[in-house]
Amino acid sequence: MTPEKLGLKPGWGPSKPRSGDPAHPLAAELTRRLGDRKVLSSLSERLNYRYDAIQFGVTPVCVVLPETTEDVVTVVGAARRAGVPVVGRGAASGLSGGAAPMQEAVVVSFTRMTGLQIFPGRREAVAQPGVITLKVSEAARPHGLIYPPDPASFRTSTIGGNLGENAGGPLCFKYGVTGDYVRGLEFVDADGNVHVLDRNAYDLPGLLIGSEGTLGLITSATLRLTPPPRHTRTLLASFTEVGACAEAVSAAIAAGAVPSKLEFMDRACVGAVEDYLGLGLPRAAEAVLLVDTDGDDLDTVQGELSLVEAACRSSGGDVRRAGSDAESAALWQARRSVSPALGRIRPQRMNEDIVVPRSALPEVVRQIRALGDESGFHLVQFGHIGDGNLHPNILFDPRRESVDAVHDLAHRIALVAIRHGGVLSGEHGIGTMKREFMRDAVDPVTLDVLRDVKRTLDPAGALNPGKVLPEAEAPETGEAARVHS
Amino acid sequence: MTPEKLGLKPGWGPSKPRSGDPAHPLAAELTRRLGDRKVLSSLSERLNYRYDAIQFGVTPVCVVLPETTEDVVTVVGAARRAGVPVVGRGAASGLSGGAAPMQEAVVVSFTRMTGLQIFPGRREAVAQPGVITLKVSEAARPHGLIYPPDPASFRTSTIGGNLGENAGGPLCFKYGVTGDYVRGLEFVDADGNVHVLDRNAYDLPGLLIGSEGTLGLITSATLRLTPPPRHTRTLLASFTEVGACAEAVSAAIAAGAVPSKLEFMDRACVGAVEDYLGLGLPRAAEAVLLVDTDGDDLDTVQGELSLVEAACRSSGGDVRRAGSDAESAALWQARRSVSPALGRIRPQRMNEDIVVPRSALPEVVRQIRALGDESGFHLVQFGHIGDGNLHPNILFDPRRESVDAVHDLAHRIALVAIRHGGVLSGEHGIGTMKREFMRDAVDPVTLDVLRDVKRTLDPAGALNPGKVLPEAEAPETGEAARVHS
Repeated sequence: MTPEKLGLKPGWGPSKPRSGDPAHPLAAELTRRLGDRKVLSSLSERLNYRYDAIQFGVTPVCVVLPETTEDVVTVVGAARRAGVPVVGRGAASGLSGGAAPMQEAVVVSFTRMTGLQIFPGRREAVAQPGVITLKVSEAARPHGLIYPPDPASFRTSTIGGNLGENAGGPLCFKYGVTGDYVRGLEFVDADGNVHVLDRNAYDLPGLLIGSEGTLGLITSATLRLTPPPRHTRTLLASFTEVGACAEAVSAAIAAGAVPSKLEFMDRACVGAVEDYLGLGLPRAAEAVLLVDTDGDDLDTVQGELSLVEAACRSSGGDVRRAGSDAESAALWQARRSVSPALGRIRPQRMNEDIVVPRSALPEVVRQIRALGDESGFHLVQFGHIGDGNLHPNILFDPRRESVDAVHDLAHRIALVAIRHGGVLSGEHGIGTMKREFMRDAVDPVTLDVLRDVKRTLDPAGALNPGKVLPEAEAPETGEAARVHS
Repeated sequence: MTPEKLGLKPGWGPSKPRSGDPAHPLAAELTRRLGDRKVLSSLSERLNYRYDAIQFGVTPVCVVLPETTEDVVTVVGAARRAGVPVVGRGAASGLSGGAAPMQEAVVVSFTRMTGLQIFPGRREAVAQPGVITLKVSEAARPHGLIYPPDPASFRTSTIGGNLGENAGGPLCFKYGVTGDYVRGLEFVDADGNVHVLDRNAYDLPGLLIGSEGTLGLITSATLRLTPPPRHTRTLLASFTEVGACAEAVSAAIAAGAVPSKLEFMDRACVGAVEDYLGLGLPRAAEAVLLVDTDGDDLDTVQGELSLVEAACRSSGGDVRRAGSDAESAALWQARRSVSPALGRIRPQRMNEDIVVPRSALPEVVRQIRALGDESGFHLVQFGHIGDGNLHPNILFDPRRESVDAVHDLAHRIALVAIRHGGVLSGEHGIGTMKREFMRDAVDPVTLDVLRDVKRTLDPAGALNPGKVLPEAEAPETGEAARVHS
């Protein structure tokens, strides 16, 4: 499979800046209508908006920083008349390429739309898309409320980006993903019309969530807030093999524990974090499990932790309970440091996001490990083991290693997931990265229905082209000719 | 507004059976292909399938009782070729007309598709659409799990019907509605293709939930299960005016209580239940509030109940805590008996399902009361006050009272909700009943987008025609002519 087939052209690695580009006519028009302050059109500025945390794309013709929904309407209308696609963007911390333009486009970067209101009586927040995820909980906490979805990047990611990817995090095993907290949306459609909808029939907001800006641009969201649990307890368990770890998790859940977080790291991942932070994690373990239980009743919380501990010990695990909040914080710092720790090993990584039945996890981890060893790439595995959500990461240096080989390995990993009854994306979205793999995950007739839905909301294909859905196969002309002859 | 405009023709009240109808050709074909046992084609049988709990429709050409997804595919294909619409049906306990055929159609009654599997390790149930809602919790409970959505009819309603209407019940304030528990769906589309989808991008399952069989026929659902709370406590409070009741609820929630149920009954409603059961409810009260708090920690559960109690007393309410499980059960029997109690007053009722901001509730209840008094109809109000979900019920006798006047009153009630920032449907769906009111609730441009979505999935309009979306207004020919002249 070539990078072109994956929609990755012009490829990973920076595209060459051309100096002295004249401003694109659309950039000129938008500057005239919205003012200098809201439109970036110099090459050096535009170059910064061609990638997300994992994917290089095409340098946009200009970048608009809207401050109101009306600004977004203006961009969409002008871009439509100019025949230029529109790509929405939050903090660009996404891990599937959702925010990277795949062809010349205007990027709408929502970072200035940061309006946020908390309605404690309704237990709701109304947030514009540029609000940093963490800010919602920060603003809600004085009212005894939080916003649970916790993607790893929640200190930098935006609500708009989270909505686009239907992002989740460790808490999603117990508390669900972004979409589970959305009561209503305002969005701008491909024609520049503004729609305000709650989640009644037909659930158009639900369709937009996770659609990566391919069906409309979300300009406001009403989010559900909940009271935080009063108590949280943490333990770390280490195992000499991955199967024992997965067994322990299944046994604990079957025994009645609903941990709020259940994180798995393989030996390579633990090694990377230890090299980076030296926190004293068990380097020799094949699998490390990090578990939180939480709730309002301390006895129940500790009881659930005891169930997990007993299950881990029964499976031969070594268990350490965090003795204090500080120790618990240190253990979670280890998990949160996985991304920077991996960045020290190779400059780039392909981060998969497969979900498999938990019972299949030992075999899946083993097969992926074998594929990694065979390929010669540095590969680490970690993830939210409670949901069977695994993030195999292929670490690589595009200057020295073949990007084609990376994608080939990624595809083979995706096929392992699908063969074991799994799916391609737990919480990162499809983006460019898993777009072609959709052919393996969704049957062709259903893909056609999804394409019909896309065409209905975006007939010209103007919204974030090249994302989520793979292109329909061109009909085989010979065959068609024969039928009609 | 005429009944015809409301899509209600041939009207409320039974349509006249024609004796000696020959079997419809589609009935004959389906009987040949599926066998006698699965197809009902006698008039007396067909007459039973033309209504739901609130709406009379058109007698179907035949009724199919499928046992497998393949049977459903067979019906959809044969009906499409015959040009006959298809209407899905669960237990027909719905309160918005979703299951009543609005034109000659084949009814697909899912009551024989009752396959149910519980997967305790995944905390999931896989249910066919004919499974009775209550059965899911009954099957899950031995594994320490329940299925929380609790529409009032959960002892008779089916999962398929609940999915079609995205049904909720008292627990939805704390636990959410049907759609919040769906992990994936299998459905048959208008072309007879079978799709199996989880809730990844694009969230087609989410679109089908609440669509009343207008976008596809759901043949299987994967449902999320949760452990039941260990403790539940109940109180009843009565108030001399509705505003004080709504204030008490808002104050309790603002103070940090998250009751699992928060039910309101007005004086007329309490009177009806007392006439029926004589449970000793406070007949003189203008508003009665019934509250459950639940959770795993008894102190927290009782603490929340105390917050509610204090808020009720501050607002001048009279509070009685249930002293035992039996007393608690008796109080909830009162609430569950509202529907049969109302049935004794008049043979039919129009049951609205508006949702308004809780702060607007006193004013909304007052205005609706005034509309009821002015109209001369017997009107009662009750509902899930935590969400501001109110069910004004117009009780009437179609033999003696004008159905047009009922609809006119219902429309005026809907407008009160919309004027106060509310919506038309909390948990019953749109159906035929609130279809025309959608014009008031959703702007015309957004309605057009919803129509586009419908057309995409059901181009011929073969699936449950006459539901959810109002017809597009015919373009004004004179105007168009002028523009083009």
